[in-house]
Amino acid sequence: MAVTRTLARYIVQSRHEEIPADVRHEAARALLNWCGCAIGASRHETVNNMLAAVLPFAGEPQAQILGRSERVDILHAALVNGVSSHVFDFDDTHARAIHPSAPVYPALLALCEWKGISGADLVHAFVVGVEAECRVGLSVFPEHYMIGWHITGTAGVFGAAAAAGKLLELSEQQMTWALGIAATQSSGLREMFGSMCKSLHPGRAAQNGLNAALLAANNFTSSEQGIEAKRGFAQVMSTKFDPEVITAEWGKRWELSSNMYKPFACGLVVQGTIDGCIQLRNEHQLTPEMIASVELKVSPIVFELTAKENPQTGLEGKFSVFHAAAVALRFGRAGEAEFSDAGVLDSATVALRKKVRIERDESIGRVQSHVYIRLRDGRTLERRIEHALGTLERPMSDADLENKFLGLADGILARERADEIIRLCWAVETLPDAGVIARAAAAA
Amino acid sequence: MAVTRTLARYIVQSRHEEIPADVRHEAARALLNWCGCAIGASRHETVNNMLAAVLPFAGEPQAQILGRSERVDILHAALVNGVSSHVFDFDDTHARAIHPSAPVYPALLALCEWKGISGADLVHAFVVGVEAECRVGLSVFPEHYMIGWHITGTAGVFGAAAAAGKLLELSEQQMTWALGIAATQSSGLREMFGSMCKSLHPGRAAQNGLNAALLAANNFTSSEQGIEAKRGFAQVMSTKFDPEVITAEWGKRWELSSNMYKPFACGLVVQGTIDGCIQLRNEHQLTPEMIASVELKVSPIVFELTAKENPQTGLEGKFSVFHAAAVALRFGRAGEAEFSDAGVLDSATVALRKKVRIERDESIGRVQSHVYIRLRDGRTLERRIEHALGTLERPMSDADLENKFLGLADGILARERADEIIRLCWAVETLPDAGVIARAAAAA
Repeated sequence: MAVTRTLARYIVQSRHEEIPADVRHEAARALLNWCGCAIGASRHETVNNMLAAVLPFAGEPQAQILGRSERVDILHAALVNGVSSHVFDFDDTHARAIHPSAPVYPALLALCEWKGISGADLVHAFVVGVEAECRVGLSVFPEHYMIGWHITGTAGVFGAAAAAGKLLELSEQQMTWALGIAATQSSGLREMFGSMCKSLHPGRAAQNGLNAALLAANNFTSSEQGIEAKRGFAQVMSTKFDPEVITAEWGKRWELSSNMYKPFACGLVVQGTIDGCIQLRNEHQLTPEMIASVELKVSPIVFELTAKENPQTGLEGKFSVFHAAAVALRFGRAGEAEFSDAGVLDSATVALRKKVRIERDESIGRVQSHVYIRLRDGRTLERRIEHALGTLERPMSDADLENKFLGLADGILARERADEIIRLCWAVETLPDAGVIARAAAAA
Repeated sequence: MAVTRTLARYIVQSRHEEIPADVRHEAARALLNWCGCAIGASRHETVNNMLAAVLPFAGEPQAQILGRSERVDILHAALVNGVSSHVFDFDDTHARAIHPSAPVYPALLALCEWKGISGADLVHAFVVGVEAECRVGLSVFPEHYMIGWHITGTAGVFGAAAAAGKLLELSEQQMTWALGIAATQSSGLREMFGSMCKSLHPGRAAQNGLNAALLAANNFTSSEQGIEAKRGFAQVMSTKFDPEVITAEWGKRWELSSNMYKPFACGLVVQGTIDGCIQLRNEHQLTPEMIASVELKVSPIVFELTAKENPQTGLEGKFSVFHAAAVALRFGRAGEAEFSDAGVLDSATVALRKKVRIERDESIGRVQSHVYIRLRDGRTLERRIEHALGTLERPMSDADLENKFLGLADGILARERADEIIRLCWAVETLPDAGVIARAAAAA
C-alpha cells in the first residue's frame, strides 16, 4: 500500500466541516494548554541558553516567542516555542505515547502570524496534524519507542509537516513530498531524557516539519514512499510496522479525542494523590493547622519513583509524593510554583509534609490513590481516587484548564493579558487572524 | 568506555602542530574540490527550490552562498552550501563509506566568515571533524548503512559539530554535549536517493552540527553518552557497534589520508573507461575524424548500470558508458558540462558514441577498463586501466583538481575569480581570515 501518498491525499482532501464540534473544541483546549506551557517555561534556562545560541542568526521578526519580548523568523519561532512548551513536561499527552501539541502548534501559530491565517484554518490544520503524527507513531509503536526513539520528536515531525502543509495548501504531490522530507529528518533519542535535549526534540520536530512543508511547497522533491519503503521511516526505525493504522477509520476515529492534560506539574503516578488531597481540602476548608496526620495508600510504583521524603530542589520535589500532598493540602494546587526550589524549602510546607506517611497497597493502580487525613479535632476524612483528574475518564474541565493556564502565566504576563489569551483560545475558530494569540503572549 | 567524552577530549586537546603536513595539504585539496562542487551546482533546481523556500526566513548576511549573489546567516549558509556541494554527486568520498567534506566545510567556512577565523584554524578544525565523522561512522558501518541510513547525513552531523565546536573553542564538557546534540539529530534515509532529499542530508548535517556546537557553547546540555549509551546513537541506529574504532590510533591514523576525489562527473564504474580514453587522446592527439571504432572491455556491472546506448538527457548520459567514452575522446574531459542535456544531444558527440562498442569481460574489475581504438589510418591503440584516476592508488594530482575546479566554475564565476579561489585554497593555511575564500566565490 502506498501509505505515504494515501495519507497525503487524506490530509489534502480533509475539509473543515468534516471535523466534529467536540474535536474542534478539543483543539481549543489543547491550544490553551500548550500556550500556558510555552509561556510558563519561557524564562527557563533551557530557553535562555537556546536563545543565546540562535538569536544572532534569526531572520525578520515574523513571529512571537511566547512569554518573551523577542520576535524572530517563523522557523526559529517554531523551534523555540516547541522547546519551551515541553520543558516542564506539563504539555498534553495522547493516551498512547506522543505529546501531540508541542511539535505541531509552534509551527502552525508561527505560520498564522506570518500569513494572517484564520483560527478556523488553524484548528483544522492542527486536527489533521495530530492525526498524522499519532497515526504514523502508532503504526510503529511500541517497538519504535522501546528501541530508544523519543516518539514525540520522531513522529512529531510528521504532524508539523502535515499541519503546516495543510495551511500552505499543498497539492497531493507536494504533501507526499512534505511527508517524505519529514521522514528523512525524523530523529530524537530517549537517551537525552534528563537533559535539555529532551525539549529540543519537539522544537526541532516543529521547525523541521514546518521547513519540510515550505520545501515541498517549492517543489523540493523526496521519495514518494518515505514512510513505507524498505529503506523508509518505518522499516529503518522500527521492528514493527502496521501501515493500516495510518489510514484506518480516517475521518471517523479522531486521535485528538484521546488527548489528556496534566493538572499537576509532576509525574503521572502522583496525580491521584494530589487530586484527592485537593478535593478534601476544598470540601472541608482545611488549613495546615487543622491537620494531625496524612496517610496515603499508594501503588508500589509510587515507592519506586516518588518516595523522596525531604526534597531540596524543585526537581526533587516532583519526585516526592510527600511534598506533592503537602502543597495540595496547603494551596489547593500543584503547579510549577509549588515545585520551585523556593517552594520545596518553604518552612510551612516542610512542616506539613512531615505529617505525611505512605503505605504500599498492591490493590491501588498506578494513577490511583487513597488519602486518609486525621484532623486535630478527631475527625477522619478519606477519599479514594479511581481515575485521577486529567485521565480520559475524568478530563480536566475547561475551567480547570483556565486555572492551569493562569498559574503558568502568573509572574510572566499581566493578568489582563492572560485573561485575553484564554478568551482568544476559546474563540479561536472566530478569529480572522489567529496570529493575534501569539501577539497577546508577548511579554512587555 | 565513555567514548563520547573520550572523543570530545581528543578533539578539544588536538593541536595544529600535531597534524602532518600531507594531511593538512589533503585538507586544502578537499577544500578546492568541495568549493568546485558547491559552485558548480549553485544554480541547480535543487538549490533554487531550497532557496525559494528558506530565503524569507534567513537572518543577517553573515556568510556567502557559493556561486551565487545571496548572503545569509551562517546556519542557512551551512545548509545551502551543504546541499549544493552534494547535488552532482561529484564531492569527495572516503575510501570506506562517507562523503567527508559536504557536511563539514559548509559549517566551517560560514563560521570563518562570521568570526574572521584563520585558514590554519579552518584546516585544523576540518581535519578533526573528518576524524570524528569517519570514526563514528565506521564504528557502526556497514550494518548501519545496510539498515537504510545515509551515513553522510547520519555520521556527517558529528563531523560538523566536532569541527565547528573546535573553531568555537568548546571545553571538553561542551564538546561532549555538542556530540550528544549531534547524536540526537542524526538522520537521513537512503530511501531518498534519486530525489532532492539526498542532498538535503549533508546540508542538514552541516546546519544541525553547527547548531549543536553553538548550543553547546551556550551550555545547552545533552546526555554525556550520546554515542554509546543503550539508547544512544550507535545502539539505536545500528546492529553493530565497535567503539574502539572511534578512539584507536587517534593522532596516528588520519582518515583524511583515505579521501578520494572523482575526476569525472558520473558513476564510479565508468571512471576507468574515461581515464583510458583521455590518456590515449592526449598521447596521440586524437580527433573524432581519426577514429574508426572504439571497443571497451568492461566489467559485468557496467552492462548492468551504464549500458544506455542513446541517452536523451544529461542524467541518462551519466548512465551511458558510450557517451562517457565519446566525450572523453572528443574533449579530453568529462565534467558536468559534458553530461548536460545539451551535451548528450550534440550531433558530433552522438556520431562519435555510435562508434563505441562494449564487451563483457569477467576479468575486468568494477573500476577497471580496457580501451581499444582502431584509427582510420589502420593503427590500433590500446590502454588497460588497473586503477582509475581518483582512486587511492592513483589520486588526482593537484593540477587535476585545479582543472576539475575550473570546469565546475566555468560559466558561473569569471575565470579570474576561479583562479583566485584556486590560489586561496592552496594558500589556505596562510590566510588570516579564511572567509575570503567564500567571498571570492560570490557571483556578480
